[in-house]
Amino acid sequence: MVRVGVIGGTGYTALEVMRLLQRHPHAEVTVVTSRSETGPVSSSHPSLTGQITVNFTNPDPDEIAEKTDVCFCCLPHKASMDCIPSLLASDVRVVDLSADYRLSDPSVYEKWYGHVHTDPTRLGTTVYGLPELYRDQIRGQNLVANPGCYTSTSILALAPFLKADLIDPQAIIIDAKSGVSGAGRSPKVATLYAECNESFSAYSVGNHRHAPEIEQVLSNASGKSVEVLFTPHLVPMDRGIFATIYATPARDTTESELKEALRAFYSNEKFVRVVDHLPRTKDVAYTNFCDVTVRLVRGRVMILAVLDNMIKGAAGVAVQNFNLISDFDEETALL
Amino acid sequence: MVRVGVIGGTGYTALEVMRLLQRHPHAEVTVVTSRSETGPVSSSHPSLTGQITVNFTNPDPDEIAEKTDVCFCCLPHKASMDCIPSLLASDVRVVDLSADYRLSDPSVYEKWYGHVHTDPTRLGTTVYGLPELYRDQIRGQNLVANPGCYTSTSILALAPFLKADLIDPQAIIIDAKSGVSGAGRSPKVATLYAECNESFSAYSVGNHRHAPEIEQVLSNASGKSVEVLFTPHLVPMDRGIFATIYATPARDTTESELKEALRAFYSNEKFVRVVDHLPRTKDVAYTNFCDVTVRLVRGRVMILAVLDNMIKGAAGVAVQNFNLISDFDEETALL
Amino acid sequence: MVRVGVIGGTGYTALEVMRLLQRHPHAEVTVVTSRSETGPVSSSHPSLTGQITVNFTNPDPDEIAEKTDVCFCCLPHKASMDCIPSLLASDVRVVDLSADYRLSDPSVYEKWYGHVHTDPTRLGTTVYGLPELYRDQIRGQNLVANPGCYTSTSILALAPFLKADLIDPQAIIIDAKSGVSGAGRSPKVATLYAECNESFSAYSVGNHRHAPEIEQVLSNASGKSVEVLFTPHLVPMDRGIFATIYATPARDTTESELKEALRAFYSNEKFVRVVDHLPRTKDVAYTNFCDVTVRLVRGRVMILAVLDNMIKGAAGVAVQNFNLISDFDEETALL
Amino acid sequence: MVRVGVIGGTGYTALEVMRLLQRHPHAEVTVVTSRSETGPVSSSHPSLTGQITVNFTNPDPDEIAEKTDVCFCCLPHKASMDCIPSLLASDVRVVDLSADYRLSDPSVYEKWYGHVHTDPTRLGTTVYGLPELYRDQIRGQNLVANPGCYTSTSILALAPFLKADLIDPQAIIIDAKSGVSGAGRSPKVATLYAECNESFSAYSVGNHRHAPEIEQVLSNASGKSVEVLFTPHLVPMDRGIFATIYATPARDTTESELKEALRAFYSNEKFVRVVDHLPRTKDVAYTNFCDVTVRLVRGRVMILAVLDNMIKGAAGVAVQNFNLISDFDEETALL
Repeated sequence: MVRVGVIGGTGYTALEVMRLLQRHPHAEVTVVTSRSETGPVSSSHPSLTGQITVNFTNPDPDEIAEKTDVCFCCLPHKASMDCIPSLLASDVRVVDLSADYRLSDPSVYEKWYGHVHTDPTRLGTTVYGLPELYRDQIRGQNLVANPGCYTSTSILALAPFLKADLIDPQAIIIDAKSGVSGAGRSPKVATLYAECNESFSAYSVGNHRHAPEIEQVLSNASGKSVEVLFTPHLVPMDRGIFATIYATPARDTTESELKEALRAFYSNEKFVRVVDHLPRTKDVAYTNFCDVTVRLVRGRVMILAVLDNMIKGAAGVAVQNFNLISDFDEETALL
Repeated sequence: MVRVGVIGGTGYTALEVMRLLQRHPHAEVTVVTSRSETGPVSSSHPSLTGQITVNFTNPDPDEIAEKTDVCFCCLPHKASMDCIPSLLASDVRVVDLSADYRLSDPSVYEKWYGHVHTDPTRLGTTVYGLPELYRDQIRGQNLVANPGCYTSTSILALAPFLKADLIDPQAIIIDAKSGVSGAGRSPKVATLYAECNESFSAYSVGNHRHAPEIEQVLSNASGKSVEVLFTPHLVPMDRGIFATIYATPARDTTESELKEALRAFYSNEKFVRVVDHLPRTKDVAYTNFCDVTVRLVRGRVMILAVLDNMIKGAAGVAVQNFNLISDFDEETALL
Repeated sequence: MVRVGVIGGTGYTALEVMRLLQRHPHAEVTVVTSRSETGPVSSSHPSLTGQITVNFTNPDPDEIAEKTDVCFCCLPHKASMDCIPSLLASDVRVVDLSADYRLSDPSVYEKWYGHVHTDPTRLGTTVYGLPELYRDQIRGQNLVANPGCYTSTSILALAPFLKADLIDPQAIIIDAKSGVSGAGRSPKVATLYAECNESFSAYSVGNHRHAPEIEQVLSNASGKSVEVLFTPHLVPMDRGIFATIYATPARDTTESELKEALRAFYSNEKFVRVVDHLPRTKDVAYTNFCDVTVRLVRGRVMILAVLDNMIKGAAGVAVQNFNLISDFDEETALL
Repeated sequence: MVRVGVIGGTGYTALEVMRLLQRHPHAEVTVVTSRSETGPVSSSHPSLTGQITVNFTNPDPDEIAEKTDVCFCCLPHKASMDCIPSLLASDVRVVDLSADYRLSDPSVYEKWYGHVHTDPTRLGTTVYGLPELYRDQIRGQNLVANPGCYTSTSILALAPFLKADLIDPQAIIIDAKSGVSGAGRSPKVATLYAECNESFSAYSVGNHRHAPEIEQVLSNASGKSVEVLFTPHLVPMDRGIFATIYATPARDTTESELKEALRAFYSNEKFVRVVDHLPRTKDVAYTNFCDVTVRLVRGRVMILAVLDNMIKGAAGVAVQNFNLISDFDEETALL
């Protein structure tokens, strides 16, 4: 039985990690930390009543090192890199759900996150935890940078076409839509029910932090310089990301060829489902699936992809990564 | 043209007051105060862009007195009674949307609101602003205590039967359900979208502050000692209150007699619609109507009533009161 | 491996049964019937893409008998009793999710469902599939009448107090609220998104079919003549039932005693969680849990209970029953 | 007082037309037709209880001609053109909310709507009812083709830039999102609450009927051959359209210049609000406003526009057109 710590246990991704791990036959949550909460984890997450019976504890590195083998780090960025080096030094393996180890260039990190990276030597060497692209590199790692939710959706949708030279890497528009849980559990006016409900809006137009992450990973994966115009929107629903992607064909192609390329790329993947119908976020809610399809419309390649931002976009892929670094069947607790 | 001030202008009730007053031919919003915001009112309420063009100002009693004839006080309780006496002293008339002047007994106020009332001589003498019960008393007043949203729904549903001695005043159960806007615009975890959406819950079971208000007003109106068991619930929707009320007949009666009593009571009221069908909150959303019906089921009197908590439950009845104290047609800006 | 048939496979309960059975290590869905659909099950339920790979077939008794060991009957009432006798005659065991075998008296059935029961000898002898009350009787059965969603919620909330003589069996008010999925997948104006969203309403006031079912089961279970006033409401959310129940104490009691009785009753039950906090439907969404608590308010016993109408209120308890009649661990595929 | 008929009175656009006309001092609804309903209009639209007191009648041309001066035709396409010629022949003026008179070329109509146009001589001569572009032509007309909801949003967003030669007319992507009321009130599985709620999806990718309408009007208005890639999506909310539009600058430009062009174009328009902030559908819900802004991002012109599909996208602009052809102040009943 692998002993699991959840660092930063009061938010939504932590909740989802714990919910998924309930079903895991080889993992046991032994530590859940919080700086603000004490008492049973279920006091903050009543849905876990009777399922996670440990109490919140203050994050104490020695206690974590003693009581856990692997930690899911669910802290905000910055807090994450303040905590992870000591965990690694104590031989605790880490799946980091924050953005702190995703970018490979410290100056890019500083530009987008507004502070200096304090653990820069690990940037560029930490594996990006998207198993469909980096499965072999993830196995055996002590630290995995779990991808962002918009990022996973976009990369899973685009990688097959970029790798196959089917689309122009410089003229990509990603019009993305997310449920509100992606905004986290810190109370803000903008994410109050009465603000988001019955409303659809765009935000961070032209300056969302997932844009450089998408470009970096797709550029690395395809060996080309990828540029995306990325627009996130907020949808009045709990869960789900929908990406409508517009690209320019790199050469003459047909919808059949595009679909075939997509099917071929994911033929051995359990969690990416290439579909013919237009996908809906509802069809992947509460699952680790990403559904994706492609169309050729008026000379443009349109890729439509959906996933559950809390599962395949966060906690689910984190458990996938946990399974990979723990040498468990990758699908454990995820079907 | 009556010059109107909105005191405490950043919340939802203030927004609704301003939205309604846009349509008022005899009112002009001249002052909107806020302690936290500066700049145009539309920066906090983008829906008012081009409609309310004044800027937020710090609440300065002299400026308010100079620039306004009537104020809608949209402050939280306590802040309201700190502000209103000086307004009244400057001959500004006030419709108070807080709870500060609703209860008639300072000790009851202190018990339920947790602090001493600092303007106790006005308790018991301030008129309760429910026009369907107290229209004549409201006219000509300088201060009106605007009712609570649950309270209005419950009183409008019950008063006809209590006044007609058709139900037992001691055995009343009010199972009430409200949209989330009623919880206000201050950010709290409990009212985040991702907490409220896809969830139905009860709160303040046995100890909600609207219970003593309901009992006081219904007792006064009916001349009987009324006791209610009041249970509020939160519904994943923006607007609307639904009250399902269970009472015991005070004597042998029929559903027809009950319906007739209800129709008779509201025969001259524009804003209370006695209906035969089961009401829905959607049918009164964005209106000043309260829809109500009655059933006799298994020996119990069941009353079902709906209104929009932001309009008939707050800003709409406030404008009704404004019209009454200003000697305008009561329906102005409300249809 | 038990071979499972899903009879009437296009609706929501069928979808949930199939979704849950994906996780069942000893069950395989071999037949899914539909009179209207052909082609892959995933064409009607895209969320099952890659998970359920059989095609819809017309309901042919011989084929079902040959290819299945147990059937989940997800047909509407009436259609269900037209189909089940032949399945049983072919030694196929059946969990019936319709109402056809729940009531024990054919005349009560006829009164509430409007047609004669064509298999009346099985009424009164078919076990009511609520494991928390009838676990031992369910084991080994060939036919189980799966409970209604409102019914399960109400019975689980009330049985402990009725059996312990703590509440008056004659003065019970059940104010129940349900998500819209409970209304099924047949298109009707009343369940369109634009009708239900941003609306709260009551329906079937005084005449809902779950009322006689609640009374029958609670009377049988407690040995008293139970009468309930049952009011269902529609909540703008997909899933979840919330029951607010008002009862009169049968004798002097305290809230502690009431809570203790509740805890004692469910001390060995995995899927009923007695909680101290006020429950929320969100906390049990997508789970097989029923959360319940009790309060003593102004001399009334208030019981608040929640469950997911699609899981613990339908497909989840059906899988529980499937596990019991198949001699599997009752929790299999449900945690 | 202008006597108004509502032809096809059971759907959502008819409801909104009647709701708005309540506030109109010079209009009275005298006839509301339906082929399926009889009895009071409020039986189908309970929100109109006490406001619209006429009964549904079967659509009889003579009766309509006798009792009305202007009709709002809220029928589906095809039914509309079967009805309108006789109304016009009887000197009843018509605002047609269907698509039947919007396209100017009968062969384009036939291609997109799948049947021959039976009143082709009026195509190409009927004015397109978008007052911001065609105000002068609308005045005095007997027939106005009220625009589609997606179409209005797209045209209002794009016309200023096309007319000013600021964007390439051939490379326009319109990623549009709509609330569910736009799908109408006919019951279908796809628009059930339990299908749409908690889901985001695309539909009619590459083949939505509003695309040729957008292209025709923008080409006519700008004198250029405009081509758009139009993608509609369904948002889990009642009301609102959000358009995220991506265009290529036609020449070197700046965000300031783009904003200035937008402001200049709408400087005298009451119902189009050029804003600096990112618009939200909530800010225009239940209003006749269209909020629009522009950004220059990574070399692309991004235009973001919102309106209420039921008001500015249907019934509100219809009342604007009604006011124009009736020689009333254009804003009457719309603020």
